Amino acid sequence: LNAHLRVLGDWGTSHLRLFLSRGDEVIDRREGPGISRLEGNPEAALFALLVPWIASHGQVPILLSGMVGSRNGWKEVPYAACPADAKTLSRATLKFRAREHEVMIVPGLSCRNPRGAMDLLRGEETQIIGALDCHSVLATRRHLLCLPGTHAKWVLLEEGRIVSFQTSLTGEVFALLDEHSMLLRVRDDRSFDPSADTRAFDDGLGRSGELPRPELLHLLFEARSRQLQGELTASQAREWLSGLLIGYDVRGATELFPRESRDEPQVLVIGATDLAERYRKALTACGIPAISCDATKMTLAGLRALSRAA
Amino acid sequence: LNAHLRVLGDWGTSHLRLFLSRGDEVIDRREGPGISRLEGNPEAALFALLVPWIASHGQVPILLSGMVGSRNGWKEVPYAACPADAKTLSRATLKFRAREHEVMIVPGLSCRNPRGAMDLLRGEETQIIGALDCHSVLATRRHLLCLPGTHAKWVLLEEGRIVSFQTSLTGEVFALLDEHSMLLRVRDDRSFDPSADTRAFDDGLGRSGELPRPELLHLLFEARSRQLQGELTASQAREWLSGLLIGYDVRGATELFPRESRDEPQVLVIGATDLAERYRKALTACGIPAISCDATKMTLAGLRALSRAA
Repeated sequence: LNAHLRVLGDWGTSHLRLFLSRGDEVIDRREGPGISRLEGNPEAALFALLVPWIASHGQVPILLSGMVGSRNGWKEVPYAACPADAKTLSRATLKFRAREHEVMIVPGLSCRNPRGAMDLLRGEETQIIGALDCHSVLATRRHLLCLPGTHAKWVLLEEGRIVSFQTSLTGEVFALLDEHSMLLRVRDDRSFDPSADTRAFDDGLGRSGELPRPELLHLLFEARSRQLQGELTASQAREWLSGLLIGYDVRGATELFPRESRDEPQVLVIGATDLAERYRKALTACGIPAISCDATKMTLAGLRALSRAA
Repeated sequence: LNAHLRVLGDWGTSHLRLFLSRGDEVIDRREGPGISRLEGNPEAALFALLVPWIASHGQVPILLSGMVGSRNGWKEVPYAACPADAKTLSRATLKFRAREHEVMIVPGLSCRNPRGAMDLLRGEETQIIGALDCHSVLATRRHLLCLPGTHAKWVLLEEGRIVSFQTSLTGEVFALLDEHSMLLRVRDDRSFDPSADTRAFDDGLGRSGELPRPELLHLLFEARSRQLQGELTASQAREWLSGLLIGYDVRGATELFPRESRDEPQVLVIGATDLAERYRKALTACGIPAISCDATKMTLAGLRALSRAA
């Protein structure tokens, strides 16, 4: 029975999520610090968390993906080149022994996007493999996936292979403006109104559809000037900014990866519920049907699929 | 003689610069904390700095401009509407007495930009009035001014009046990415090469000229991916990002305020030397002739001109 036991780990910049799995079942979970929050070395941090599982089960193979394989992680695993699928990733997976355990770290991916620019991802490959494993419809034809987050990824699949992708800094730009800028910090004592917040998001989204499209850098200050004019509360300005940035991201992506026919499949958004819903709404506003699924589930499904292929 | 004495003050978010002037001569200077860095109230902070001047000269009229007149400043002075000139600003200047001194605070300006959106500035009106006072050529015809900074302002003058402007968040977005993002923090031990830095700026600038213009949010991550691929050092990536953002700002501005004829006057860039030179270079790359002048000089000239008009 122990032969089917695996430790699966999603080790990103801010979080480590470990799953003890037997076949397709998760029998225990643990959480730890992300790669950028480690105080000691990654090996020590990992094995400290594994103590109870090793005590119960002895040696268990460990499969990890995410920033753990980056230059600032545990061991650098070179990016595998697109086009890629689970087999490509398995062949490029780094295998080594640590404290007598077999450790495998999944590589990230590199591609040339449709503009000819080099792009990179690390961690999202696992979610994409998970989506391919869960949604058999993705195995044929052409599909656009959207993985929103700090660095959002737009991913083009053809016949079940990852052929190209584009990174967008939407999430990070929003977070930086939200946390550090004076843009959203106008003094305002009005009370919170959820439906006005939703309208503000839709209004920001609508601005991204203006033609000719204004330069984004020239629209951002409106989040402040419209507060100073009493048109938006701070909370509404935040929603307006979210709609504006997501709208620009989505419009850019649909131009970079244009639909080839009207009956092309809907876009699959893989992300946390609230964020995925914002992107789904923005895609719909551009006339592009979209559905969403949960990122955490896709990560676990991807780790399982890569573990089977390893 | 005392009748011509004035305290002129440029009181922005981060700095207070006070000038004791007699006619057109500055006879002393003092510096203090910006509005966002005050610990006590603005009146106390101001008069603490004025002690030696008041001891020598008694009561002196005080003219202030900048964020001191904002909602978070000393007293809120409503924005005057464009079109505007020195007379408009003087009429809208807030006058009151504090500790038996006459205090005047210059208003900011509001406008509808060519897209019909409301925009605001505060502090830059003084530099623009200074430029009008120093450069008589600005008094006739149509001129585009560029005031780069945290919130860059593009300002359209017609027949010596400020008719419209556009705020751009270029400087703040660059600073946030530079200070808080992982974008420019790839481990790299290569030595510094100034000419490669210049080439990286030009390369970023060049990217803004690609047609169709890619979505800016989709280009920012290249600052990181090109470091990871060994194409840019961290210092070069910073320059590349500066060129890219300034290029997008300038392209957007020249589309919003298109030149009406080939013999339209050159753009006047008012800013700190290094930043003004970056914008001048970007304008030149777009085929638009530009010259630059020092922002601090224009502020002082503007305060003098507004003091004469008050």
